[in-house]
Amino acid sequence: MTLVVQKYGGTSVGDADRIRAVADHVARTCRQGNQVVVVVSAMGKTTDDLIRLADDVSRTQPPRELDMLLTAGERISMAVMCMALADAGIDAVSFTGSQAGIITDTAHTRAKILEVRGDRLRQALDEGRVPVVAGFQGVSTARDVTTLGRGGSDTTAVALAAALGAEACEIYTDVTGVFSADPRVVPQAQRLRRLSFDEMLDIAASGGRVLALRSVEFARNHHVPLHVRSSFTWEPGTWVVEEEPTMENAVVTAVTHDTSEAKLTVSGVPDHPGLAARLFRALADQSVNVDMIVQNVSQHGTTDISFTVPTTDVPTTLQTARAFGAEIGAKEVVADAGIAKVSLVGAGMRSHPGVSATMFETLAAAGINIEMISTSTIRVTCVVRADAVERAVQALHTAFGLDGA
Amino acid sequence: MTLVVQKYGGTSVGDADRIRAVADHVARTCRQGNQVVVVVSAMGKTTDDLIRLADDVSRTQPPRELDMLLTAGERISMAVMCMALADAGIDAVSFTGSQAGIITDTAHTRAKILEVRGDRLRQALDEGRVPVVAGFQGVSTARDVTTLGRGGSDTTAVALAAALGAEACEIYTDVTGVFSADPRVVPQAQRLRRLSFDEMLDIAASGGRVLALRSVEFARNHHVPLHVRSSFTWEPGTWVVEEEPTMENAVVTAVTHDTSEAKLTVSGVPDHPGLAARLFRALADQSVNVDMIVQNVSQHGTTDISFTVPTTDVPTTLQTARAFGAEIGAKEVVADAGIAKVSLVGAGMRSHPGVSATMFETLAAAGINIEMISTSTIRVTCVVRADAVERAVQALHTAFGLDGA
Repeated sequence: MTLVVQKYGGTSVGDADRIRAVADHVARTCRQGNQVVVVVSAMGKTTDDLIRLADDVSRTQPPRELDMLLTAGERISMAVMCMALADAGIDAVSFTGSQAGIITDTAHTRAKILEVRGDRLRQALDEGRVPVVAGFQGVSTARDVTTLGRGGSDTTAVALAAALGAEACEIYTDVTGVFSADPRVVPQAQRLRRLSFDEMLDIAASGGRVLALRSVEFARNHHVPLHVRSSFTWEPGTWVVEEEPTMENAVVTAVTHDTSEAKLTVSGVPDHPGLAARLFRALADQSVNVDMIVQNVSQHGTTDISFTVPTTDVPTTLQTARAFGAEIGAKEVVADAGIAKVSLVGAGMRSHPGVSATMFETLAAAGINIEMISTSTIRVTCVVRADAVERAVQALHTAFGLDGA
Repeated sequence: MTLVVQKYGGTSVGDADRIRAVADHVARTCRQGNQVVVVVSAMGKTTDDLIRLADDVSRTQPPRELDMLLTAGERISMAVMCMALADAGIDAVSFTGSQAGIITDTAHTRAKILEVRGDRLRQALDEGRVPVVAGFQGVSTARDVTTLGRGGSDTTAVALAAALGAEACEIYTDVTGVFSADPRVVPQAQRLRRLSFDEMLDIAASGGRVLALRSVEFARNHHVPLHVRSSFTWEPGTWVVEEEPTMENAVVTAVTHDTSEAKLTVSGVPDHPGLAARLFRALADQSVNVDMIVQNVSQHGTTDISFTVPTTDVPTTLQTARAFGAEIGAKEVVADAGIAKVSLVGAGMRSHPGVSATMFETLAAAGINIEMISTSTIRVTCVVRADAVERAVQALHTAFGLDGA
């Protein structure tokens, strides 16, 4: 008997009809001879509603209480999911994060899973029942309720799949899989049948919103095959699996883009060793999430440092960088929110030199200026003007042969 | 330092403004040098909304999952209450029923408290913090989440007050206390300053809706003084305490009424010993909650048995009573939903004979016919036509000198 973990996101359990449709699909999976563990998110906009309530009530929101509040959402969806499964003839039983044995550290609102004690779930499976587990939550070593932060329900599902030795972890969402580019930008984008964990990581890191980075890392580290698919069409989606050394990799798998960052430039920095390190340490101490960093060639004994951060972090970043600039005698610090990133991702890049060159030529031919460049072994990212990024994605999608037959 | 348990019902925490008002009151109570444990119900109509969601999703509602669903409501209110308390400068910490150590049996949707392990609450109090506990819920000996049924949050508050040795348990609600009659029926009804547990029990059992019977029983058995008061006016309300042998009791404390029951009559029952016992055993087996029972004088070798049940139990009762009637050769079974109960309650009745006689005379003088009578040591109840019950309450309130100076 094959064990699968099925995770259903907020839109998949958005209302009573959707919940019944999910219950029917779980029942079908069971009748096909599989064991199933279901992981659910909060219904639709429940979490947003709870956050709004907290904002209405109070300016002071202790993280422990925020976690207690938000975990109510998954509790509701898992209980009604069990009821719908009972209607569908399935003996289901709900488990909170705590009951499912998901033990975390004490970092409220962004806890890390330390251990999964799967004995209650295993017992339920042995009794022929379907465990329905609340995503996004656990219990800390101090016996308090915790949440796992953004993408937490995906992480719950992957952690359970790893702990229970599941064959696969199916992530049900409102899109039919991972695409070669955002279909809203590139109508001819293709659904990818199969990706390596590394490719998925770079896609997630460079703007692909389907899976949270953290759950993909967890899946890679624990060798859990992921299947990203739609709970609206139920058709097969995209598999994210270990890279097979024998398989011929596409040079470029996907073109991604991200408009959620801004560029900051500290200009006229004296060219002394260690100054850049001090700047980025100061930003890290403020929990600013720095992404790309480029240090321009030094001229006249000074240098310019540019980097990107999430637009939400711009005020903190400006304050920190200006204090640093004044201290070391830099010329000025400017923020530019009008940028976007465009990236190529593909495991085949490792063995195919020249991808970057083709990328730059394609952008140049389209009249698009490149402001920053960064590369990894399987990704090339360029920063361009935000108003040019959709043209950039379309041109690159065509140039690298992703438009399909 | 005095320890008080304060319980806030659904209307008391109905919206963000109400929650902030409660937080201010708790802060005031702390600044007056008291230790406080707060127990909260779900906000306003949250529980009704969750039940409606369950009905939308499913016809099959396993009691374990219904409990899991409904406990989300208190979880939300306790978390936001802690946030509001933080705003008010109070270091508060929330506890689910399970975290508060409320251990119950496994009877989902109507669990009974077996034990209260108060160590986490005591520790929080010792650290100078205000524990905020979810009412209505516990954890079963099988480690499942349970709910305590109707009036469950009051029971939580009383159980915690007993376990922690609190000075008093304050029950905050949307009325200012317990009255000598329903003020909507008798505008001149007086707020009672002080009642014995026995009186409160008979008031609750005969139609007074302010406190659930079960929490009063618990308070009496554990000697926990109750203070029923309003979270809208914050004025002192009604104390429910042990009866003091030295105190002169009012003959009649309150006139209550109840329109939620129906009368059933099984007529032409052969006058053999044991037949009535068989009928009421059969009804008990169907969980029908029989209240008053009157067996009329036997005539021509047959007898009539009348009894009252909640109107919601009428269909089950009719079916069971008709099967019984057919089996023993009774003449007929009829249900009458047009009745109401009116009761006098007062600890002084024990030493004052003649209360019943005065009651019957008063009703007769008002032209109101009595259909059934039942008495206990401190209560007399008459069944009358439903359309006459308000007149009955008013006439009795005046006749027994409760209208005030």
